[in-house]
Amino acid sequence: MDAVIVLSGGMDSAVLLAHEISMGTRVAALSFDYGSKHNPRELPMAREICARRNVGHKVVGLPFINELFASSLLQSGEAIPEGAYDADSMKSTVVPFRNGILIAIAVGYAESVGASRVLIGSHSGDHHIYPDCRPEFNAAIDEAARLGTDDAVRVAFPFASMDKREIGDLGRTLGVDFARTWTCYKGGELHCGTCGACDERKFALRHDQGLDPTRYLK
Amino acid sequence: MDAVIVLSGGMDSAVLLAHEISMGTRVAALSFDYGSKHNPRELPMAREICARRNVGHKVVGLPFINELFASSLLQSGEAIPEGAYDADSMKSTVVPFRNGILIAIAVGYAESVGASRVLIGSHSGDHHIYPDCRPEFNAAIDEAARLGTDDAVRVAFPFASMDKREIGDLGRTLGVDFARTWTCYKGGELHCGTCGACDERKFALRHDQGLDPTRYLK
Repeated sequence: MDAVIVLSGGMDSAVLLAHEISMGTRVAALSFDYGSKHNPRELPMAREICARRNVGHKVVGLPFINELFASSLLQSGEAIPEGAYDADSMKSTVVPFRNGILIAIAVGYAESVGASRVLIGSHSGDHHIYPDCRPEFNAAIDEAARLGTDDAVRVAFPFASMDKREIGDLGRTLGVDFARTWTCYKGGELHCGTCGACDERKFALRHDQGLDPTRYLK
Repeated sequence: MDAVIVLSGGMDSAVLLAHEISMGTRVAALSFDYGSKHNPRELPMAREICARRNVGHKVVGLPFINELFASSLLQSGEAIPEGAYDADSMKSTVVPFRNGILIAIAVGYAESVGASRVLIGSHSGDHHIYPDCRPEFNAAIDEAARLGTDDAVRVAFPFASMDKREIGDLGRTLGVDFARTWTCYKGGELHCGTCGACDERKFALRHDQGLDPTRYLK
């Protein structure tokens, strides 16, 4: 195995998986059920993506996050705020050190299966309210992985210099079926179309140009 | 809450907890059931220590480690090797990136409960075969925690410059009941007395001077 990809079932990691496969990377996928409101929507997408591409896939349950952690993103938390990502209210959606935890587990799993890389779909548009998506954090967790595995595993962020629309465009050229990816934080039957995450998805998938196959509530 | 301590039920973290309490730190304890052979012995010790000292305590289950990771320390792994820690064979006891994973979870929990520090009982005698116990790793994971929490949480290793015997001596002055801590990797009814971990415990607790209250098989 070359790499372990953290696959949420969202559009960024779905494109990253397609991109790596197109380059010949032998990849195993790891998803996490940590009790977010949208886990029940995105995890079936992750399973479907892996089944269709014949990629080995494990779903790791982390129920303690929903039980012990505080965030509106979690099923145990308050309602997801409306509106744009940069609103102060969106800070309630931070799950403390979530990416730190998911990456650490992926690093241990990668070492166990002999993969030398962990791949994360973070991109340049990931919002500043999420400290564990920033470039400085990415560099630090990679260094911790390198030192903590005796140089066996590195953490890579191949989309670090791309924005979400560039990722959408790349995915279109790779034939990614975006209708079978999930973004909306609310986790309803359909994408709500109005939360900060949906706003961004629409922009990324060129909704206004008729290129977005997503069915939105609004 | 001032700090979250990762409490295994072993002697090092038991002494660290007593030490922090003696200094007036308000501390919450976090233990992990990751499927090691000695988890069934050490977790009841961790529970007992917290109950006796009136410390809030959570046990986080990480069953995926035993299912997906490769290590002789795990219930799913081969037998624990005999003999000294520095033997090449002891490398089989490494659980890939275990401390990285446990620390990352403790960082997220600390931020959730408003604690600014995560305390780890790693010490200078922790063996070089465990890369995620080394000072360089400790510094890197602290940096990742700092950046990934917007400076809300730091990871501290108060015993970093002490060896295990110094920790034992400190624990004795603090009244730690070492008979109610667990070290042996084999997880039998009694400490085996012959594995690398037991060897070190005997030295640390001054077994040859009659100061070690542990009942050993040999």
